[in-house]
Amino acid sequence: MNYQKIIEKLHHDVNTIPDEGVVASYIPALKKVDSTKFGVSLCTITNECFGEGNFEEKFSIQSISKVFGLTLALKLIGTKLWNRVDVEPSGDPFNSLVQLEFEKGIPRNPLINSGALVVCDVLISELENPKKELLQFVQKLANNKNINYNLEVMQSETKHGFKNAAHVNLMKSFNNINNNVDEVLDLYYHMCSLEMTCLELSNAFLIFANGGKLLHNNEQIITARISKRINATILTCGLYDEAGEFAFRVGLPGKSGVGGGIVAIHPNNYVITVWSPKLNAKGNSFKGMNFLEKFTTETASSIF
Amino acid sequence: MNYQKIIEKLHHDVNTIPDEGVVASYIPALKKVDSTKFGVSLCTITNECFGEGNFEEKFSIQSISKVFGLTLALKLIGTKLWNRVDVEPSGDPFNSLVQLEFEKGIPRNPLINSGALVVCDVLISELENPKKELLQFVQKLANNKNINYNLEVMQSETKHGFKNAAHVNLMKSFNNINNNVDEVLDLYYHMCSLEMTCLELSNAFLIFANGGKLLHNNEQIITARISKRINATILTCGLYDEAGEFAFRVGLPGKSGVGGGIVAIHPNNYVITVWSPKLNAKGNSFKGMNFLEKFTTETASSIF
Amino acid sequence: MNYQKIIEKLHHDVNTIPDEGVVASYIPALKKVDSTKFGVSLCTITNECFGEGNFEEKFSIQSISKVFGLTLALKLIGTKLWNRVDVEPSGDPFNSLVQLEFEKGIPRNPLINSGALVVCDVLISELENPKKELLQFVQKLANNKNINYNLEVMQSETKHGFKNAAHVNLMKSFNNINNNVDEVLDLYYHMCSLEMTCLELSNAFLIFANGGKLLHNNEQIITARISKRINATILTCGLYDEAGEFAFRVGLPGKSGVGGGIVAIHPNNYVITVWSPKLNAKGNSFKGMNFLEKFTTETASSIF
Amino acid sequence: MNYQKIIEKLHHDVNTIPDEGVVASYIPALKKVDSTKFGVSLCTITNECFGEGNFEEKFSIQSISKVFGLTLALKLIGTKLWNRVDVEPSGDPFNSLVQLEFEKGIPRNPLINSGALVVCDVLISELENPKKELLQFVQKLANNKNINYNLEVMQSETKHGFKNAAHVNLMKSFNNINNNVDEVLDLYYHMCSLEMTCLELSNAFLIFANGGKLLHNNEQIITARISKRINATILTCGLYDEAGEFAFRVGLPGKSGVGGGIVAIHPNNYVITVWSPKLNAKGNSFKGMNFLEKFTTETASSIF
Repeated sequence: MNYQKIIEKLHHDVNTIPDEGVVASYIPALKKVDSTKFGVSLCTITNECFGEGNFEEKFSIQSISKVFGLTLALKLIGTKLWNRVDVEPSGDPFNSLVQLEFEKGIPRNPLINSGALVVCDVLISELENPKKELLQFVQKLANNKNINYNLEVMQSETKHGFKNAAHVNLMKSFNNINNNVDEVLDLYYHMCSLEMTCLELSNAFLIFANGGKLLHNNEQIITARISKRINATILTCGLYDEAGEFAFRVGLPGKSGVGGGIVAIHPNNYVITVWSPKLNAKGNSFKGMNFLEKFTTETASSIF
Repeated sequence: MNYQKIIEKLHHDVNTIPDEGVVASYIPALKKVDSTKFGVSLCTITNECFGEGNFEEKFSIQSISKVFGLTLALKLIGTKLWNRVDVEPSGDPFNSLVQLEFEKGIPRNPLINSGALVVCDVLISELENPKKELLQFVQKLANNKNINYNLEVMQSETKHGFKNAAHVNLMKSFNNINNNVDEVLDLYYHMCSLEMTCLELSNAFLIFANGGKLLHNNEQIITARISKRINATILTCGLYDEAGEFAFRVGLPGKSGVGGGIVAIHPNNYVITVWSPKLNAKGNSFKGMNFLEKFTTETASSIF
Repeated sequence: MNYQKIIEKLHHDVNTIPDEGVVASYIPALKKVDSTKFGVSLCTITNECFGEGNFEEKFSIQSISKVFGLTLALKLIGTKLWNRVDVEPSGDPFNSLVQLEFEKGIPRNPLINSGALVVCDVLISELENPKKELLQFVQKLANNKNINYNLEVMQSETKHGFKNAAHVNLMKSFNNINNNVDEVLDLYYHMCSLEMTCLELSNAFLIFANGGKLLHNNEQIITARISKRINATILTCGLYDEAGEFAFRVGLPGKSGVGGGIVAIHPNNYVITVWSPKLNAKGNSFKGMNFLEKFTTETASSIF
Repeated sequence: MNYQKIIEKLHHDVNTIPDEGVVASYIPALKKVDSTKFGVSLCTITNECFGEGNFEEKFSIQSISKVFGLTLALKLIGTKLWNRVDVEPSGDPFNSLVQLEFEKGIPRNPLINSGALVVCDVLISELENPKKELLQFVQKLANNKNINYNLEVMQSETKHGFKNAAHVNLMKSFNNINNNVDEVLDLYYHMCSLEMTCLELSNAFLIFANGGKLLHNNEQIITARISKRINATILTCGLYDEAGEFAFRVGLPGKSGVGGGIVAIHPNNYVITVWSPKLNAKGNSFKGMNFLEKFTTETASSIF
């Protein structure tokens, strides 16, 4: 299949649709991004990469980073993680704290904020220097040392993160946080502030299309079994309250972030990353959703 | 792959695990079933069928029938259905009515009770004789005239269905039910009372593994696109509050019923149906879940 | 105190405030009322009555009737009623069904719809001809045979009452309704459709200011103890989600209805009834709230 | 009325009832109290005080202190307070955070934790030395310098206060907290740690029975109008999810604390304080509730 040609065509097509989204504005650092940016990159497990538009520019990957945290935590403590966080979709749009209170401090899944905070708590317990080791882990997956936290974004989130502080304190009141609340939030905000390009994300996510193995050296980062399970969790829980819609329209496991990025995985085949900062009403990239729907239709590559 | 051999082995293995489930007891008609029944049937899109145990005995398919209703409604009114029902997982275990009230009478998805009631309302609006035509549709999918409603089960459900009456009245108060409340409930309880064998279910679900086409005569019942989308909806919403767990452990779209049946679809490959009446705490067949997890592990046939 | 003069003055004052309310429009029968109507009537336990404006015109008392139902149910089965309905304020504005589901079909108090439906279920179980005997009970309290149900209002409510049907079915699913669902709704809608004047309501409620005794013949309808407890329940639960505000601003137990009536009780002193059809955002008479606040301030007759 | 004799008799009677309560154990400092303590003190607006049992021993007044904070805040900023906190009962037992999230960070009333945290935020904004000035205010109301914070209790609460931290952070995310989160919590925990005797509490609360005036020097601390409104708020919101039950059984405005104290006010008449550490299932003193119900029955002094 001529992926490069398809990507170019759809990139052009989607660019002609009026963008109904709005840039995330809850922190100044995100708000000031150029809202016309639009990049796409696809990498296959046969080691080919394609790209179009701004696919080599860094952007704030935000919640996409939760997949890295989850993968590292599973590598460190395995299935013990599931005693502290569930794998079910979160359902209600309105009730992040409701569910957490009702379910006694056990987050619905590791890809919502509360779940990722538990993951960070695990990393702090297991690692000597969690911030540094998490970064190195991401660099290793991407086979690229040029990946970093953005400290301005990190500080900006910290200053506006009272809702996350509410979550972590509530979980601590249920004894589901073992470390200091501020330390957990600090790691969490560092993780969210990671900056990567579309191309780097496609590369870093290839292990999930490749049975848990790095492509360039065949190192088995996680077992094939865990890799499949992460994909399943991404599919059911990766797009907030639009997970069903994404599975329905796109048909692949996908993870989005408020920076406007979406990464989608076709197991045993490819990873595709789209970035466009304007978000639809449910907080996912407007162009990204449209592009991916067209792409899996055109390439007939839904998993269903 | 020697499916017959694998099925026989796993049927035997799972039978040695102590069954921690309990038979659904909310209506007498379900309670009196022999709880040791355990059948498995697999049919491939290359037109081979395999089976083990009680796979040719009729059982109450209950919520599995919601997939038939949904398919027929999509065939009749297409995407207009999505104005009246969403495609998101329902999330909370405790709040069927909560969400429905909060979301102004729009059910989260067509595979929970409230969503299936809307589907029934559509069928009543569109069909001359909805009960008869729905039955004929199921018979056609299964290529088998020997499928029927069980009127004893239907009447038993009606007598205990005050919660469903609450749902349909609440939706009517939000103008999301167009027909008479009792008529909608009557069709719904008929649909739930359908009786089929594992083998019949595997056959009837083959269209979802075969791009929407009947195998024996190539008739295109629904488009390949709709077929994929139904699979996506089944994956995210098919197992009540255990959809994430099922995707995680089994890795296939699956739909369960309180009668103890579970049907799982491997697109472009096969359909497998398991039946064992004892249910786990989340209302899904205990043996069924265990069998399917082992089966997709053994055959490496997760979609992820 | 010259109640007549005070009432006249405040009636005039409140009439000069622009009415920010809107007439209840969920049923045609209520919508067509003349929205400029404004009546006030006060009766004391020393057997004096005062009035101003449209205080001798019939209006639909709606939820005010729940107090009559509750009183009769307590007279019939006493404290056994509290096994089936609680006495706590309902709190959330948004969650009538939420709470009912969470609290297993036990309504928060007898003055919300679900609680009054349980009360009706009790009356049906205890009385031979519940509709007739409830009407006679109200006529007796008011010492006035000229009080009746309005069948047009009753039928209108029945046709739009899907939310109440949802409530009663949900409670039936929790075994907190013993009689036929339609029979319970029928009595409930009859009760709501009662028509009375301000003067008749003030008279009928005098037993709660008079230790449970009828004024004209000293008949003890309920014990002084039960009378006090009904007053307490009215104060904490009588104005939907504005009970706290009413206690705060008016300082008396009060019960409102969507017809625009509010009855307030000063124990051992008087009953005052106000009627003006336009309702504030919380469903209580705009002029009624304003009048009563001014009245208890002017007469220094808060119970606090 | 011979209050001393009645109090002694009822103190004796209640002591013979097996205490079904349990001592609050969420912090060690509360747990170690002698659970057999039982004191009662009544003070009238005619300047007489009575007492029985351990009525002159200090105990942790906990949530009772919220009334002092509220009174001082109303004195400082008047009705502006009601823009930031409502006056409605909180309803659900299970949903402190639910409601707060649904109602956009506006607490239901000033006597639940979230409301008292807003009150503390006001005190910090308005006072130079809030901890010192709040203490002086309480000393003034009680006409007694020998009242203090218990720093051990304060520190103990701080160490276990993750749920309160969740509340204050959630409100900060809705911009309903203006000061530093830790500073607000610090004042809140100081306030909760106040220690007083039954006698001191009865004296300090006399302003609410006396139209807002201190008894010994006639100083008008708050207007009679505000005093009445505080009483109304105490009645509808003072006993957590047992406010309706308390109004129903006791018939007076009352405020409880997890230390086992309950203060009840009979406007224009008296204040009565009971202390016994074992709490019923809803968190209110078991003996306290029983004593007060018997007392208002015996003295016929319900406000209803």
